[in-house]
Amino acid sequence: MRKTKQDKPWIKKVGLEIATPSLKDNTADVDRLIKGIKKGLETEDIRIDLSMVRQLPSLLREYNYRGDAVVFEDRNSWHLIEIFPCGNANGVFVLAVDLGTSTVVVRLMNLSTLETIDETSFRNPQNEFGADILTRIHFAAKEDGLSKLQSLLIRKLNEEMGALVKKHGIDKKSVVGMCVAGNTTMTHLFLGLDPYWICREPYIPVINRPALILSSEIGLAISPRAPILVFPNVGSYFGGDLIAGILASGMIQQKEVSFLVDVGTNAEVVIGNRDWLMACAGAAGPALEGGVASMGMMAGPGVIDRVTIDSETLEIRIRTIENLPPVGICGSGLIDLVAQLFLSGMIDLRGKYVEARCRDRLQDIEGIKHLIVVSYEDSGTGKPLTLSQPDIDSLMRSKAAMYTILTTISNTVNIHMSEISRFYIAGTFGSYIQPHSAITIGMIPDLPLDTYVPLGNSSIKGASKALLSARARDDVFRIRDRITYLELNVNQEFMNLFSAAKFIPHTDRSLFPSVKVSSS
Amino acid sequence: MRKTKQDKPWIKKVGLEIATPSLKDNTADVDRLIKGIKKGLETEDIRIDLSMVRQLPSLLREYNYRGDAVVFEDRNSWHLIEIFPCGNANGVFVLAVDLGTSTVVVRLMNLSTLETIDETSFRNPQNEFGADILTRIHFAAKEDGLSKLQSLLIRKLNEEMGALVKKHGIDKKSVVGMCVAGNTTMTHLFLGLDPYWICREPYIPVINRPALILSSEIGLAISPRAPILVFPNVGSYFGGDLIAGILASGMIQQKEVSFLVDVGTNAEVVIGNRDWLMACAGAAGPALEGGVASMGMMAGPGVIDRVTIDSETLEIRIRTIENLPPVGICGSGLIDLVAQLFLSGMIDLRGKYVEARCRDRLQDIEGIKHLIVVSYEDSGTGKPLTLSQPDIDSLMRSKAAMYTILTTISNTVNIHMSEISRFYIAGTFGSYIQPHSAITIGMIPDLPLDTYVPLGNSSIKGASKALLSARARDDVFRIRDRITYLELNVNQEFMNLFSAAKFIPHTDRSLFPSVKVSSS
Repeated sequence: MRKTKQDKPWIKKVGLEIATPSLKDNTADVDRLIKGIKKGLETEDIRIDLSMVRQLPSLLREYNYRGDAVVFEDRNSWHLIEIFPCGNANGVFVLAVDLGTSTVVVRLMNLSTLETIDETSFRNPQNEFGADILTRIHFAAKEDGLSKLQSLLIRKLNEEMGALVKKHGIDKKSVVGMCVAGNTTMTHLFLGLDPYWICREPYIPVINRPALILSSEIGLAISPRAPILVFPNVGSYFGGDLIAGILASGMIQQKEVSFLVDVGTNAEVVIGNRDWLMACAGAAGPALEGGVASMGMMAGPGVIDRVTIDSETLEIRIRTIENLPPVGICGSGLIDLVAQLFLSGMIDLRGKYVEARCRDRLQDIEGIKHLIVVSYEDSGTGKPLTLSQPDIDSLMRSKAAMYTILTTISNTVNIHMSEISRFYIAGTFGSYIQPHSAITIGMIPDLPLDTYVPLGNSSIKGASKALLSARARDDVFRIRDRITYLELNVNQEFMNLFSAAKFIPHTDRSLFPSVKVSSS
Repeated sequence: MRKTKQDKPWIKKVGLEIATPSLKDNTADVDRLIKGIKKGLETEDIRIDLSMVRQLPSLLREYNYRGDAVVFEDRNSWHLIEIFPCGNANGVFVLAVDLGTSTVVVRLMNLSTLETIDETSFRNPQNEFGADILTRIHFAAKEDGLSKLQSLLIRKLNEEMGALVKKHGIDKKSVVGMCVAGNTTMTHLFLGLDPYWICREPYIPVINRPALILSSEIGLAISPRAPILVFPNVGSYFGGDLIAGILASGMIQQKEVSFLVDVGTNAEVVIGNRDWLMACAGAAGPALEGGVASMGMMAGPGVIDRVTIDSETLEIRIRTIENLPPVGICGSGLIDLVAQLFLSGMIDLRGKYVEARCRDRLQDIEGIKHLIVVSYEDSGTGKPLTLSQPDIDSLMRSKAAMYTILTTISNTVNIHMSEISRFYIAGTFGSYIQPHSAITIGMIPDLPLDTYVPLGNSSIKGASKALLSARARDDVFRIRDRITYLELNVNQEFMNLFSAAKFIPHTDRSLFPSVKVSSS
């Protein structure tokens, strides 16, 4: 990441050269320091927290009225975070946090060089009180539930951040800012805000646009005056993680229209450009998260992420993460597998097993057809890995839902699929997915393959971006305010689109000219 | 106090009428509330502290999205202090505090009616660790000394404020603001700031212009988000108490030039009008504070505050506070006494006892002349109350110092005494002093008596004023920034003026035409 003209930092270091006190100039320490900071900042509005004021008399004298001030800007005022003595070579640091429901990722960056120093990820400790958001919201309603969930998270964050900075010989006081992107419920729990109404009609979060807070307000063990930027949300079901994704994609800088898709239990879809943004979310089903298929798993070691099927021999070739013996399949692997099954004629356009092609690979277990994808000999689990007809049906619904949502939102803004210049796919799913397979099954539109851009962990990318540039930070709120949220109306028209999309690739084959079936 | 057009409040109550949430309007609680407050305030910048955000979901629902918000303005942003349900008839309150070195005065006011409800005063608990400022500064340098001094004060304040509001059936949460005026050291100790450098060359306070803080930052037991306005200081020896006095006097609204004098161990003098202000302070000696005269005391029950001497019989008639048997004399009583002694010829123009006039009233105790002012029979102490020659000498130095300071500062700005339209005298001293007696001894200039205006407790008056009006609050900082501080240069010229003023009323009798001696 390079600094451009517009990319002014909102957390920065200012060199201090302050006149030492004398009988001719007996200005108070604080006023003297403010004068020194003003010189470097060209602002009239500098604020110093009482906790810092208390330290100034001894610090200023210890540092001999020389050194660096680290300040942050908030609504045109600059606030002092810390002062450091001259020649403090270590520099200052910031942390970007992807506050996932299941996994938390923390990235340590050098504020001066803008470089990423290290990254760590760990299981969200709130899992102990519920793996999913709803369970946690219910737990928060119990006595002390909310404060338990919050303190568990903060304690774990402090542990992990502490270890991370210690590893690099960095003093906690030198960590002068943090940015947190998460879904609406996770950011509420982070701030200690009651998420009770998030899951109850009419689904009201406590806050949409959290103001900057200081780290001491929630007990984070970094500089007590480090600003914590918590990504805003659009509503209960469109959180800061998505806004981080939009920021990370850069789609709001482009004249052309882009899609951004984040696939989980919900498929979240954003369409727009530098002038407008529309978003919607719909249940995509858990098929893509590894929740339903009996062999489905989150991406991880030994998980199948690529599948090819030889259309002659019908041999299924798999690739696993870290090349370990296969133990399951992730969402992108599943899309690959189903696309290949279709291309090799082992399933038909309704996604049903073609017995004549599958032959003895197909087994009947308790009246349900299962395809043996990996035999027990090759499996890492000691059991065969199979894909049942209901697994495929489930994926068919998911992919149809996704395509219907994409169609509905683009119809609403009257944009034709061919006008889409980029199609960003967020998350792990986006990193592993093979666009041509997703196109083959008709999950995403049949656009040139280079239209598809995996974003990786867009939450941490967005959070990092917002930390290092005032423009990006402001863009976060611009994005939030600009988004028109499309409430998905599951009416007859939607159901018609959905039904048409429940074929591979689609009932209207003209929409998917690139999908050519070799045999059937 | 009446509201004028310009006297807009900076702490105020805003009626809330917020749209209740619905599926068509699922704005978050905080954003919904901000919208409601904006309606009543016409501002774009409303801020809500995280501690308040946490309470909003339950409060807003409990109050059914109706009620009052209490907000304060700081540098053009409005901050939420509390919300109250509809029909909370009790109103909201603020506290003005005169943070004296020896005595603390707390005044409770109704923010809506602007009325004073009650006032309480108590001994500054820091007296335990030193009666005077210097001793406290030294104590603060000991381990935990500063935090002990601060917490002692805060604890006592909480106790006294708690009792005050309880007495009137007021909930602590309804106390939504506080303003504190005190000298530089006292305000430092209040804020927990190290006063170490205040009394050491070059006499640097930690802070000149404290920003507004929230009550929770220093542990005050009122609304945790109540703003605390601490009066700024000009330097180590010109504190917020003086600025409060200037504000209370109203001299900065006037075209004509006024003097403001605050007499204690130091005589603090301000001269100026709506365009300019000059101040200086000089040692006036402790004579006027009741510190030196063997019978000297602070004003209080049984203390002599008026003296007349029959020039025929030379009988000394006294008046005491609350008409109790006399136990001592306060500064203003002392001035009265010495003026009367002079007018009756019992002391000469050098302030020396005239034995021929005093006769047997004069006693020699260990070689020092003492005048028996009150015989042991009439005394409330069982002992005679006497005034020694050194007591008078000490007063002569004090009064000469005061007159010299007044002359020096008015000479500096080239204002003749006759141009002074008002002469404000702050403090208890100002309430009790008889201007004609002070003129008689040549302590203050010989101006028409109605020029002299006692201000009473100008610290609490100034603090009250600043709490109730944004203009007055802004004036506080305008006063601070406008003051030119005159460093008293004790050079030959000063010493000449001082020597000339060490006579009663003065070597230059033409300066005091109204002083006529009946006999000598």
